[in-house]
Order: sequence, then structure tokens, then C-alpha cells
Amino acid sequence: MKLKVASKILDANERIARDNRKIFSDAGVYVINLMSSPGAGKTSLLETTITALKNSLKVGVIEGDVAGTDDAIRIDRLGVPVVQINTGGACHLDANMIYEVLGDLPLSGLDILFIENVGNLVCPAEFKVGEDIKVMILSIAEGHDKPLKYPLMFQESAALIINKMDLKPYLEVDVEKIKRDALSLNPSIRIFELSCKSGEGVEQWTAWLQTLTS
Amino acid sequence: MKLKVASKILDANERIARDNRKIFSDAGVYVINLMSSPGAGKTSLLETTITALKNSLKVGVIEGDVAGTDDAIRIDRLGVPVVQINTGGACHLDANMIYEVLGDLPLSGLDILFIENVGNLVCPAEFKVGEDIKVMILSIAEGHDKPLKYPLMFQESAALIINKMDLKPYLEVDVEKIKRDALSLNPSIRIFELSCKSGEGVEQWTAWLQTLTS
Repeated sequence: MKLKVASKILDANERIARDNRKIFSDAGVYVINLMSSPGAGKTSLLETTITALKNSLKVGVIEGDVAGTDDAIRIDRLGVPVVQINTGGACHLDANMIYEVLGDLPLSGLDILFIENVGNLVCPAEFKVGEDIKVMILSIAEGHDKPLKYPLMFQESAALIINKMDLKPYLEVDVEKIKRDALSLNPSIRIFELSCKSGEGVEQWTAWLQTLTS
Repeated sequence: MKLKVASKILDANERIARDNRKIFSDAGVYVINLMSSPGAGKTSLLETTITALKNSLKVGVIEGDVAGTDDAIRIDRLGVPVVQINTGGACHLDANMIYEVLGDLPLSGLDILFIENVGNLVCPAEFKVGEDIKVMILSIAEGHDKPLKYPLMFQESAALIINKMDLKPYLEVDVEKIKRDALSLNPSIRIFELSCKSGEGVEQWTAWLQTLTS
């Protein structure tokens, strides 16, 4: 009984995700579903990315959080269109939440839309929202054991950003193991070592985004 | 329809959690449900705590992970009873998962049982597993905006461990804001500033555990 219900919910999500996908595609906007644990640096990465790309690409953002508007306020300061979704308890965004806010964004005027998911290394990977690709962030402060403990997100993501590389001297973390284990789960995953603080890896990441949207 | 089903699932969980609670109480074991984001330091805290308490309290551990046995192996090295639960996809432990493994632990020989939940700052707070109290860990590397973004876990926890304090010089994090916001959500929450690396706060934390179990 429980399984049957769960599968129905997933089907409904799939269907709405496909509808969203078509809306994005018709509008000519490339959509990235950005996922990570709480505090891995999703919003900071968006701030850095938007600042770097602002003159070449039109960027929009959907912010997902259980509660609060801090992230949307941070993005709004950069002068790009942003909508905040508060899930009110749900630990991930689903396709219907995204569908409900599409009218609040100037989609056909955008080149790229980032959907910042709720901070959670598990469930967001299970729910498509209509994105072109999923990208995940792992802060090196979370440790090198994460790929094998949370495999689905690494399997589902087109790219992995290993973030907060500036903290490496102060941590006992094996970045090569993160990369090795991520690649064993997903041989085609694109890996960026990055720090929003030092700027390391930002150019490689934004150059890659340019190729995706061109 | 969806809401109705969800409420039924929660009821079943409540009922099994009450059964677990009675089993723990009859065995005279104090149970702590330990929750945090991925990589905040749950297993390291358990290693530190077990090492500190080993001569005075009999400790057992249930390890919850989506996949893998790394954490159980780390605890097993310390010579205390440990059982690993792999949720296989679920982002939290529920009461039934705990019930299923109770026979694998020498409950009546234990003073304290730690249940290390799946790394997730959202859902674990919604599912009782039969614990006496919930304790949460927040790594300062996650940033000071977490209490207001993930309020339920702070509201449900009897104690908050602000962890990885050794990293403070390298981060722009306002620890006072974390404490202020956590207390605004939950005025009775007990707060420990701690570092397993430097040992800061470990004595206060383990002394508090001693008072709970005496």
C-alpha cells in the first residue's frame, strides 16, 4: 500500500517535470538543479557565478528553503530575477513547486536558470523538477566519505563542485578519494575544485557553463 | 489524499516509537537520537564520547546511513556494540527500522544508546524512533544561517553541539548568532561549543551525559 502510493506520487512528479522541461525548452533557458548538504555553499557559488557571468549571460534563480528568505535576498542584491520557494517542511523541491512559480520569472528573457534546492544530500536527487542537468556541491569540510554514503546524488549529477578548497590546509580530508569515489559511481561526472573565497576553479566552472548555454 | 496517507504513516511510526521507548525504558538504557547534516561530525563525536565515557558507562550505537558501513566500522574499533542500518534510499531513520535491530544489541547491559541518524537537517527531526532526547550537531563550516532555515531540528533537540570550533579562525561565521537564533527557536536548548580535534567542550558535554544517565 505504502509503495503503491509512493509510486503514484513519483509518477505525478515525473509528469509535471516533463511539462516544466517543455516550458523551459520553449523559452530557450538552460536549467540547472543545484543540490548539496546544508551549508556546502550553494548560495555563495551562485553569487560568485552570477557576478562572473552577468555581462555575458542572463541569469535567473529559484531559491528553495524549508523556511526563510535569506538566500533570495542575497541573490536579489545582484540585480537578477529571483523567486523564493519555502517548502514549509518538505526536504526537497518537487516539480509542482517549480511549476507554481514559473509565472513569476521572465523565462524567455533568460539564458540560464539556477534552481537552488533545499540543503539535503539525499531526497533532492530523487525528484526531477524539469532541469537540463543536476549539479552538486560537496564542501571539503564534510569529509571524504560522502560519495559512498550518499551515492544517488553523485550518480545523478552531471557535475560535482568540491567546494571550500581554501579550508584544505586545516582539514584532514583526502580530496583525491572524493574524486575517485565520485568517478567510480559516475564515470562521466565533471569535477571542479573550487573556492569562492580564493577564486580557485571559478574560471573553469563558469567557462563550462558558457559551453552548456551556447 | 496525500495528506491523509502521510498522517497514517506518521501514526504508525508514533506507535512503533512508543513500543521502542518502552523496550528501552524496561532495559534501563538512555537513548539519544543524534542528528545533523552530512559531515557535521556525528561519528567523530561518538568516537570522542565513547573514548571519554568507556570506563564509566556502557555505551551502544546504532548507525544509520543511506549506504555503506564506514561508520559502524569506526565504532566497532572502539569495542562497543554497534549495529549498522542501511536505509537504502530513505533520508532518515524511522521507528520500525530501529525496532527491527533491537534484538542485535545487548540492551539490558547498556547505560546509554546513541542512534546516529542519516545525515540530513530536515526529516530526521520529524520521526521519533523511541529516543529519550534528540541531540543535534551543527558544524560551524555550515554557516550561521542554519537555525532560521532549518527550524524544526533546533526546536526538537534537547541539545545543540556547535562543532568543529577549531575551524573558527578560518571561517567568517558568527557563532553568537547561531546561539541566539537557536535559543529563539527553543529557549531550553542546551548548547555546547565543541571540537573533537582540540578537545574544546568535550568535558562539558560528557559531564552532561553523565547527569542524564545517573
